[in-house]
Amino acid sequence: MTTNDLTGEVVASFDRSLEPRTKEVMSALVRHLHAFAREVELTEEEYFTAIDFLTRTGQISTGKRQEFVLLADVLGLSMLTVGLGNRKPPEATQSTVFGPFFVEGSPEVEIGGDIANGAPGQPCLVTGRVLDTKGEPIAEALVETWQADEEGFYDVQKDLDEPQNRGHLTTDAEGNYAFWSVKPVAYPIPDDGPVGELLRAGGRGAMRPAHIHFMVTAPGYARLITHVFAAGDDYLGNDAVFGVKDSLIADFTAHQAGTTASDGTTPDQPYYTVNYDLVLATTEETS
Amino acid sequence: MTTNDLTGEVVASFDRSLEPRTKEVMSALVRHLHAFAREVELTEEEYFTAIDFLTRTGQISTGKRQEFVLLADVLGLSMLTVGLGNRKPPEATQSTVFGPFFVEGSPEVEIGGDIANGAPGQPCLVTGRVLDTKGEPIAEALVETWQADEEGFYDVQKDLDEPQNRGHLTTDAEGNYAFWSVKPVAYPIPDDGPVGELLRAGGRGAMRPAHIHFMVTAPGYARLITHVFAAGDDYLGNDAVFGVKDSLIADFTAHQAGTTASDGTTPDQPYYTVNYDLVLATTEETS
Repeated sequence: MTTNDLTGEVVASFDRSLEPRTKEVMSALVRHLHAFAREVELTEEEYFTAIDFLTRTGQISTGKRQEFVLLADVLGLSMLTVGLGNRKPPEATQSTVFGPFFVEGSPEVEIGGDIANGAPGQPCLVTGRVLDTKGEPIAEALVETWQADEEGFYDVQKDLDEPQNRGHLTTDAEGNYAFWSVKPVAYPIPDDGPVGELLRAGGRGAMRPAHIHFMVTAPGYARLITHVFAAGDDYLGNDAVFGVKDSLIADFTAHQAGTTASDGTTPDQPYYTVNYDLVLATTEETS
Repeated sequence: MTTNDLTGEVVASFDRSLEPRTKEVMSALVRHLHAFAREVELTEEEYFTAIDFLTRTGQISTGKRQEFVLLADVLGLSMLTVGLGNRKPPEATQSTVFGPFFVEGSPEVEIGGDIANGAPGQPCLVTGRVLDTKGEPIAEALVETWQADEEGFYDVQKDLDEPQNRGHLTTDAEGNYAFWSVKPVAYPIPDDGPVGELLRAGGRGAMRPAHIHFMVTAPGYARLITHVFAAGDDYLGNDAVFGVKDSLIADFTAHQAGTTASDGTTPDQPYYTVNYDLVLATTEETS
């Protein structure tokens, strides 16, 4: 067998796959993987470096840390998959990466409630409406949200007894949602593992611009997974995971202590507000 | 950013790599990875299936089991890398996969010694010479060898106190090597992990044809990593890791008890012999 015949032989080995999709995906994977190795004339030393890298990427992963998601993020594969899987009308809010920090079973809050739960940071009132692509409100949509604190950490990165800066709530009849959290800041993705090594070898930064995560679901609509990014952030043009879209950038407005916010409260310290409408496409509008 | 711009942005993120080779390899990897995802329109569900698969592949790996090597083997990447890295004259013995079962520090044996060390199987005398591409013997070449037993297991797959079916020896002035082991048999690669799942989903077999591993080193020569396969094996045309080359197939000859072998011994049980010359290319002859 010559090296040139090899690829065809490996592709053919998947001819008897149990599912047609397995054959399709695996034969494409083999062709592209081999084309990569041939193009760079991958050396045996590099092969073993890759084996070791991937092994450690699996081994550092836990229920609270998913290093392969992080790897897919910094290689743009996560964002590419999001794009391929969420084709929808231009009126709908764009999707971005899910990220590794979502946790099932976040606390339920009332509209206008506090999700910060003591997290360090400047208070921030986050408001908006969940709408359909015609601008009509979607009542009783489930809005899940999570974000980092002023120090750049998600609660799961710290040793806490209770969740901080994460929660879920349900929109009212006008589609409104509102909650208090803290103003998010730019932060580095975890860079003490294999992905950090790759970023350093690649001369790349680990920072992500400040953002708030949203996952919104409502019957009949495609699930929306996105972020709202803070306008003016230094890293909007240099996100380590390529997640920024211009349409997802919103102004976080600073307010002085003693001024009354849109929810009628009057904080006794400086605070921020941000308003962002989340527009869902119907299942039929999404492909 | 559109999905189409994304690939260029990720490629460019490696422009400031510390080493030019890192930039070259990573930009090619990103291009081929993205081309794969676009071609198959990778779904988010498949993305998470892949994340889970790779994570488990890392987590099942130990010092004695390397599931990522096994994955690279069944995708033909190992054999492709071997081919790319071992271009040499046609007179030289061809290379094949290293496999996951080599162990550093194998027992030293004299020429004609026994490496089986009690492993189950029919005795087999393995002989040959280590030669250069002009047919001249290479004295004092280091020959390392390892293989499975009659039950299809390497020693590291069993709970043993001592090595079995592995050892190293040094060629004599005429380049001769010789050792007793057991006749190898076809065996399945470990299929109780993620790679086994992939093989079953792909409708593929896990069997490898019977073989003996060799790694041969001598000053001035390129290291040779190869197998000698047993002629007539049912799986020569269907090796789970694509390692077979016709030039690496040799006859294992059966002998009756009481006949004298080439090393002057007269076993009191039936035995096999195989003779195979291992031809090394010089470092200069290899690219």
